[in-house]
Amino acid sequence: MIRFNCDYGEGAHPRILARLQETNFVQTPGYGEDEYCREAAQIIRGLCKSDDIDVHFLMGGTQANLTVLAAALRPWEGVISADTGHIAVHETGSIEACGHKVLCLPHENGKLRAADVARLCKAHYDDASFEHMVKPAAVYVSSPSELGTVYSREELLALRAVCDEYGLLLFLDGARLGYGLAAPGNDLSLPFLASTTDVFYIGGTKQGALFGEAVVIRNAALKRDFRYEIKQRGGMLAKGRLLGLQFAELLRDGLYFDLSRHAVQLAMAIKAALTEAGYAFLIDSPTNQQFPIFADEQLSRLAQSYAFSYQCRVDEKRSAVRICTSWATREEDVERLISDIRRG
Amino acid sequence: MIRFNCDYGEGAHPRILARLQETNFVQTPGYGEDEYCREAAQIIRGLCKSDDIDVHFLMGGTQANLTVLAAALRPWEGVISADTGHIAVHETGSIEACGHKVLCLPHENGKLRAADVARLCKAHYDDASFEHMVKPAAVYVSSPSELGTVYSREELLALRAVCDEYGLLLFLDGARLGYGLAAPGNDLSLPFLASTTDVFYIGGTKQGALFGEAVVIRNAALKRDFRYEIKQRGGMLAKGRLLGLQFAELLRDGLYFDLSRHAVQLAMAIKAALTEAGYAFLIDSPTNQQFPIFADEQLSRLAQSYAFSYQCRVDEKRSAVRICTSWATREEDVERLISDIRRG
Amino acid sequence: MIRFNCDYGEGAHPRILARLQETNFVQTPGYGEDEYCREAAQIIRGLCKSDDIDVHFLMGGTQANLTVLAAALRPWEGVISADTGHIAVHETGSIEACGHKVLCLPHENGKLRAADVARLCKAHYDDASFEHMVKPAAVYVSSPSELGTVYSREELLALRAVCDEYGLLLFLDGARLGYGLAAPGNDLSLPFLASTTDVFYIGGTKQGALFGEAVVIRNAALKRDFRYEIKQRGGMLAKGRLLGLQFAELLRDGLYFDLSRHAVQLAMAIKAALTEAGYAFLIDSPTNQQFPIFADEQLSRLAQSYAFSYQCRVDEKRSAVRICTSWATREEDVERLISDIRRG
Amino acid sequence: MIRFNCDYGEGAHPRILARLQETNFVQTPGYGEDEYCREAAQIIRGLCKSDDIDVHFLMGGTQANLTVLAAALRPWEGVISADTGHIAVHETGSIEACGHKVLCLPHENGKLRAADVARLCKAHYDDASFEHMVKPAAVYVSSPSELGTVYSREELLALRAVCDEYGLLLFLDGARLGYGLAAPGNDLSLPFLASTTDVFYIGGTKQGALFGEAVVIRNAALKRDFRYEIKQRGGMLAKGRLLGLQFAELLRDGLYFDLSRHAVQLAMAIKAALTEAGYAFLIDSPTNQQFPIFADEQLSRLAQSYAFSYQCRVDEKRSAVRICTSWATREEDVERLISDIRRG
Repeated sequence: MIRFNCDYGEGAHPRILARLQETNFVQTPGYGEDEYCREAAQIIRGLCKSDDIDVHFLMGGTQANLTVLAAALRPWEGVISADTGHIAVHETGSIEACGHKVLCLPHENGKLRAADVARLCKAHYDDASFEHMVKPAAVYVSSPSELGTVYSREELLALRAVCDEYGLLLFLDGARLGYGLAAPGNDLSLPFLASTTDVFYIGGTKQGALFGEAVVIRNAALKRDFRYEIKQRGGMLAKGRLLGLQFAELLRDGLYFDLSRHAVQLAMAIKAALTEAGYAFLIDSPTNQQFPIFADEQLSRLAQSYAFSYQCRVDEKRSAVRICTSWATREEDVERLISDIRRG
Repeated sequence: MIRFNCDYGEGAHPRILARLQETNFVQTPGYGEDEYCREAAQIIRGLCKSDDIDVHFLMGGTQANLTVLAAALRPWEGVISADTGHIAVHETGSIEACGHKVLCLPHENGKLRAADVARLCKAHYDDASFEHMVKPAAVYVSSPSELGTVYSREELLALRAVCDEYGLLLFLDGARLGYGLAAPGNDLSLPFLASTTDVFYIGGTKQGALFGEAVVIRNAALKRDFRYEIKQRGGMLAKGRLLGLQFAELLRDGLYFDLSRHAVQLAMAIKAALTEAGYAFLIDSPTNQQFPIFADEQLSRLAQSYAFSYQCRVDEKRSAVRICTSWATREEDVERLISDIRRG
Repeated sequence: MIRFNCDYGEGAHPRILARLQETNFVQTPGYGEDEYCREAAQIIRGLCKSDDIDVHFLMGGTQANLTVLAAALRPWEGVISADTGHIAVHETGSIEACGHKVLCLPHENGKLRAADVARLCKAHYDDASFEHMVKPAAVYVSSPSELGTVYSREELLALRAVCDEYGLLLFLDGARLGYGLAAPGNDLSLPFLASTTDVFYIGGTKQGALFGEAVVIRNAALKRDFRYEIKQRGGMLAKGRLLGLQFAELLRDGLYFDLSRHAVQLAMAIKAALTEAGYAFLIDSPTNQQFPIFADEQLSRLAQSYAFSYQCRVDEKRSAVRICTSWATREEDVERLISDIRRG
Repeated sequence: MIRFNCDYGEGAHPRILARLQETNFVQTPGYGEDEYCREAAQIIRGLCKSDDIDVHFLMGGTQANLTVLAAALRPWEGVISADTGHIAVHETGSIEACGHKVLCLPHENGKLRAADVARLCKAHYDDASFEHMVKPAAVYVSSPSELGTVYSREELLALRAVCDEYGLLLFLDGARLGYGLAAPGNDLSLPFLASTTDVFYIGGTKQGALFGEAVVIRNAALKRDFRYEIKQRGGMLAKGRLLGLQFAELLRDGLYFDLSRHAVQLAMAIKAALTEAGYAFLIDSPTNQQFPIFADEQLSRLAQSYAFSYQCRVDEKRSAVRICTSWATREEDVERLISDIRRG
């Protein structure tokens, strides 16, 4: 059984494990106040070409999302998300558990449209009873999105403009950020994200680390007291060094980007082969998540050798699945998959 | 200017004020532990033909909704509501502020359909990642709904069956309950509600009281410790007697139902006259809220003499408004309104 | 049975009821956006000699406390209170339910000492692990306190100075404010409070109204969006006019202060008579709450004719009780009480 | 500089790292639904001699504490803790952020006394206003405590009896559980804890793992839906296998207990040497945390070579510090420390 169902099915890149080994008996202060975290933060500042950002390391995506939004929002404020957004559907109401409504808008290819956000805000303030409704105060986007699609500079700048007009904080979930940066046609970059969003994160869990997300904060109000909030929500790892070590290793010399490119190239190979073989896709994704459509019978056969994520039923006889490649995917497994699919 | 924009534009029925006057210097214990509250609860038990219900008096609808749901739900649980539900749109995220997601379903004439609720629950438990999603644990309905429509026995029994199947609590918001009970074609009754829902409330604020909602609890788990939760959410009125006094007065001899009938009769007169005059309605409502559609020009003229609630734009030239009658509406005002509308 | 156990045992001053009657059929907008609320706010601005304050009307003390503190604090912030503070002991954890710790300090005669607050804050910032502890961000005081004592200008100015030093918001719970202003030796005033605190409230419930607290906000950050928070916490009364009407009536021509003086004079008469008769007091209170100490046997006898609040056991044979006078207390009842106590 | 300031200053026991290496490219499902987690849970069931327990793996102590208590408590309920309890002072109000008050009692040697808990509960229910106060619903104890002391069976059974009398859940924080089990005089055991508490955890972070706490649940109500709550609070590690792997390795053949004994033996050596040399201790601790008292001058000298945790000032010239040994402490470092201290 070969697993293509997710991009967090293995451990970590061997260099990460080697680094853990090397540093294992070095004694450091706890809670992220160690030299490895400082080093990783400094590398990230360099990559973002900004000294004016704060960097914090958290353990996972849900934790990052809830900590950022709990710190950013006042009780009566909500966050706008695509209806497919991870915080809207797959985090067991963690944002609501912090007291905030997720204001959903229909997605377009997994993405929020700036015009829809502007319309929601305008409608809010045009309504005589606006104080009876949750105040829109932040925008949450993921790039790559849940459907593998990526935002363009133009799209993010349009969202930024709406955020500026209506006083919204712009937050980008980058759990798979590297796979997005490696996507064909991508025009985003770390410096662009660091200067365009109020806060975003660089995902590690799905990109070669054992775990970890590096939260990058530009917004001054959000920077203040952020460590209190990390601690309060259970996100301050005692051995914070483990996070610093991993990000330093991934980002020091471009390993992170190499691994991302690897995964995307294999995904593009799958996409090209299936397209050529006449398969349709639920969506045109340029990243490591692909959503091909198979006949149910074929799926049953493939399921004997491969694990996919079931995505949705397309019609009476066909379903879409999610196939993920990752930093750890082996070329030979991709080749076998392609050849097995071609066989039908 | 005559106000038809809402059903809480005046004070209270004169008998309420008289009763406040009569009892003003009687000394009672505070916090709802007085003889008037006991009397009102006893009257409600009689009307519901049940000794097995607890009755609590709260000050308003949002307070009642949030107190009931905060007491009923565990942190990871959410409440299912029509997307037009008051808790979903017009309470500034009060349910989320208590930590819970409102799981919205499309409404049908302002109402939730049992089949939709069942589908949502089935989809939840069919999903392999169900623990990553908010657990559906309660159903919130309003009758009359935000659009003036009322549930039938059959509809509520169907919801009850789904609730039983999936372990959901059934909660009915009765802020305008009397107007629903007085609606042509209504087949609900207090005993039916008391034996079919887990909890519902009898609205006072919009039905002749200065303020107040009488929460009726049948569910044993919800009964337990409910007064703690009232206190915690700021809903325990020091002079709780004011609530007991009002409900006793309204319910002792049927005043509540007389006032409801009065409002509905006047609403039906407006509905009939407008229908006869060729006006369309946004929805076919049998209660005190009517949603006629006017040309914008005519609306401007009417707005010089009457206050309505703006509901929504219907097309380029026409809008729907909400016209409310209430216990306090005067026949002559209704007649004047009808004649002014007929004049175009 | 004559009740001296609390100051909210009757209805409202007859002028309040008369005013409700007079205005009963006037139609107004809901939710506090009516002319009566505006009038009352304007009267309060006049009494506070400040145009730079916002005034909101809430229904009770717990609601006022939780709404103010939920709006003021960020998730990791807490409020400092005397360990006898109402929010610390008698509101069923309502502040915690909004997510915030109440940081308790030992009281001195029911009051917080500025030096203790400064010490707590200094200790917080001196601790290397300060981010692992709740950040002190507000100070909650009541005047009169739970023990009937009042703050002096000097004491409040000292608290203000500490608040300024450590970035704390100063919040004064004035549920019995009038009784404090009428106390012998008092040097506080409404203009002083409005310019010294960030937010305080003028209690109505215990001071002649049916219910209601007038929240006065000077702090600009707290003013912003406060109505959203009122709505979210269930505190926005549909017929908000009822609150405006009552405060306008109480404050228009000094009725509030007359009623306060009445209660305090009767309390002072009780205090003088008991002192003369050799009774000790738990505390030296200059306001409407008195805490005399009685032998348990005598208490049992008195309990046949009078209701007191049991306060605490003093020694094996004696207990302290709370005796409250109020706007509604009758002189003849006080005289009878005094004479019965004198009889032993 | 040798660090004795905490027991989480290094990485993990080499066998843990070796195991990560070995299994690195094995593909598993995410979120704790893998064979390693199942294996670790099974080992723990064996050690606890109970098949009737659920085992969940979380990443740290604060996360474990808040997830358990948020799942256990209803909104109006609070948890009783010693005033030195970690949840009471060093988790930035994480329990309050979940809506619950921590009801503090004075500690005795860092421990809660059953009699104090009983007194608090009795006082609660004896108070006529009990619904105005937070309902005591759980007891939180740590063993070893913040002061290194351990509970005896007798003490825990006494707490259990009070919990049964008043309907409280008994929760034991075992962040340093192994060090307690290895303490001279200890009479606790895993089967005893699993049958006496409702829920407890076996700490990994401070006991040889990179991170991780194994939560053991006996209470049936708490078992239900617990994974929803883990997910909601951000505690469901994507690569949950990392937790299972570590606990399986630590517990499979007694490594956990060996490491605990190692740390406690070194701590006892320090304790004996200092006692012999005439040093006093803040408290008599039988575990890996020791709290000797030094003259401030001597502390300054020692601080040049050793890191301790500053605990508190004892008098004008002396302070207590915390010295921790751990699974990773080297004998030669302990010997050097002892000899340097002896030199004064």
